[in-house]
Amino acid sequence: MRQSQLFSKTRKNAPADEVAKNAQLLIQAGFIHKEMAGVYAYLPLGLRVRNKIEEIIREEMNAVGGQEVELTALQREELWQRTDRWSDESIDVWFKTKLKNDTEVGLATTHEEPLTELLTQHINSYRDMPLAVYQFQTKFRNELRSKSGIMRGREFLMKDLYSFCRTQDEHDDFYAEMKSAYERVFRRVGIGEDTFYTYADGGSFSDYSHEFQTVSDAGEDTIYIDDDSGIAINKEMLNESTLKELDVEREDLREARAIEVGNIFPLGTKFSDALGLVFKNEDGEEKPVIMGSYGIGVGRLMGTIVEIMAAEDGFIWPENIAPFRVHLLALGGSDDVRQAADGAYEALQSSGIEVLYDDRDASPGEKFGDSDLIGIPTQIVIGNQTINKDGVEVTNRLDKDSTSEILPLSEVINSLS
Amino acid sequence: MRQSQLFSKTRKNAPADEVAKNAQLLIQAGFIHKEMAGVYAYLPLGLRVRNKIEEIIREEMNAVGGQEVELTALQREELWQRTDRWSDESIDVWFKTKLKNDTEVGLATTHEEPLTELLTQHINSYRDMPLAVYQFQTKFRNELRSKSGIMRGREFLMKDLYSFCRTQDEHDDFYAEMKSAYERVFRRVGIGEDTFYTYADGGSFSDYSHEFQTVSDAGEDTIYIDDDSGIAINKEMLNESTLKELDVEREDLREARAIEVGNIFPLGTKFSDALGLVFKNEDGEEKPVIMGSYGIGVGRLMGTIVEIMAAEDGFIWPENIAPFRVHLLALGGSDDVRQAADGAYEALQSSGIEVLYDDRDASPGEKFGDSDLIGIPTQIVIGNQTINKDGVEVTNRLDKDSTSEILPLSEVINSLS
Repeated sequence: MRQSQLFSKTRKNAPADEVAKNAQLLIQAGFIHKEMAGVYAYLPLGLRVRNKIEEIIREEMNAVGGQEVELTALQREELWQRTDRWSDESIDVWFKTKLKNDTEVGLATTHEEPLTELLTQHINSYRDMPLAVYQFQTKFRNELRSKSGIMRGREFLMKDLYSFCRTQDEHDDFYAEMKSAYERVFRRVGIGEDTFYTYADGGSFSDYSHEFQTVSDAGEDTIYIDDDSGIAINKEMLNESTLKELDVEREDLREARAIEVGNIFPLGTKFSDALGLVFKNEDGEEKPVIMGSYGIGVGRLMGTIVEIMAAEDGFIWPENIAPFRVHLLALGGSDDVRQAADGAYEALQSSGIEVLYDDRDASPGEKFGDSDLIGIPTQIVIGNQTINKDGVEVTNRLDKDSTSEILPLSEVINSLS
Repeated sequence: MRQSQLFSKTRKNAPADEVAKNAQLLIQAGFIHKEMAGVYAYLPLGLRVRNKIEEIIREEMNAVGGQEVELTALQREELWQRTDRWSDESIDVWFKTKLKNDTEVGLATTHEEPLTELLTQHINSYRDMPLAVYQFQTKFRNELRSKSGIMRGREFLMKDLYSFCRTQDEHDDFYAEMKSAYERVFRRVGIGEDTFYTYADGGSFSDYSHEFQTVSDAGEDTIYIDDDSGIAINKEMLNESTLKELDVEREDLREARAIEVGNIFPLGTKFSDALGLVFKNEDGEEKPVIMGSYGIGVGRLMGTIVEIMAAEDGFIWPENIAPFRVHLLALGGSDDVRQAADGAYEALQSSGIEVLYDDRDASPGEKFGDSDLIGIPTQIVIGNQTINKDGVEVTNRLDKDSTSEILPLSEVINSLS
């Protein structure tokens, strides 16, 4: 894309009304726009990043056999009364509104109820399972405060998958598969090394649930990491019984602040019992379905990546989720430079490489400044100096030790494609 | 995809509580699920169709230079007060809800206000235009009644594009480009011949707006078509002045019921004046931006296609938006059939053809019945009879005159790919 066409502009300064680093940086670079606290619009660069994260998650959900659907935001009271989750006492972040006939309806904070009820129409027999259904859907949560940028929104995109199994063993196997799928997601988006499988409270459903916690000073949670095993314990569950269960010693644990980027949850038969999701097993007996839920907040994950990046020196997107693979800068307004840069843009694009081409009539300082804010991993500069050397200046910005090199364009294209 | 894995089941009968044909058929075939009146979840087959329609629209919006964003559902009162559109008198389909601190917020029915305000931060100079920004976003509209299935929902996916131009001429040129882009969309989804560019009321913004109306008995609108020119007039605008302006004779017009599948609207400077979206022109003068809006309801378009299909003999999706390109049916449970069908499934898939493979342990009657409900355009049947003839039985269901043929699989794959 030609940057002269891109409508979003960077700002000289970070917005004064944001405390979260992710919101400051993303707004300053023109990736997102604040509509109100906890409610952010995605601008072209931000949407490109979020779509890439979404696509990585989708691939991994499909790989474990997930079937994609899209449920609705608007929810009927009657359904949630059946699981006793309609009141503000049980779900304290409901947004409620009213139809014209004064019927109260809710905006979904999560989707166990509607999906479980929907599946009573499609699951009858043991032959209909195991089954995994997921969606990317906007959740609404009426948070009292919302100061964490896109990490804790009042309106945000979430991937939620629900599993439906016949036996506890089958559920446990699928749960383990999902653990691996989540690990692949976090590795692919570039935070695998900082993210720990964490034992957390199972609520009314189970002894434990499991969170994926990414170590960051911006985190709201405190976790205790056992580096030998690579597992962690959420502070709320750090007790003798958990330590014994996991066979770890308290003195081996290190404390860290962390952001919950995903969670997986055994639901047992809580929802299938309440909503009548049963099946006939091989012996013709009626049994309740055993469920699990598996969530990743897509915006939260993107915000976490920004927090991690921002803590390092400079702000560079991991390759897999960068809005573009290459930022091409044309320096100076000479015809030679323009012609060489136009040619390089065409050549990169025709090799299937995504390029943001800064073709604007702007100073080198402005172009480098914007390039630092936008954080595309590979920078290619073309100016009179590089033309004189028959090459382009390439910088791999993800490798802090690497220096810029002047290389022939063809060589650069080969190494990128 | 193997149909034995697909969780959605067809129903023997259409749902009794739906009056709209599109909802009856889509629910019966397992494409959608009714959460409440006007609120539908998309199941795997339905989501595949809607995603294909969305992608066709996206391609055409990108082709006219549209930049994709995603704005928010939650809206601040203050912003809409500035255009006098916060009250139920001006927008009678608002859903309103409240933050924890009792601040009232709305769920967006449309997005002129937030986008115009957002762009005051990014448009300053004549160099920043012309500009087109679009999104696919869930709209909420508190309709009094909602009986038209996915054609008029309370919650639905909409593509809305907004244009920002410097002069009336520039706006008019872009408006004409969008007209062509919309015509391409409707042609590609298979309703081009039934869809007419229709002169409609311009509201407080303009003399006219333009609707794309698809002729169907399920339509809520009445239009008058001039077959010579291919244009139409909405009943609300059928008057001497319109006839004169368009140079058509009343007696040449034929009346038809029609569904509005898209609309394009000159907005003038109504929103830019109210929200301060101005720019400096070449002479350094401050001018308001000239805007237009361009909407397509994605669900409504899908529902319209179903209504059109349902009016014909049988229910077959147009090729470009069918959930799969081929429905492969294995008849009878013999090892030979199973082996041949598995092989055909692999071969079709490795040729890049999307296949729904009915590998279920079910009777031929059940498989053909489901295949009729799902409406995939090409049907390939494998049974003992076809194996004896060294071929597969192919039916092109979109061509009502064509008959089934037994052909070698390789020949079928060649003609499909």
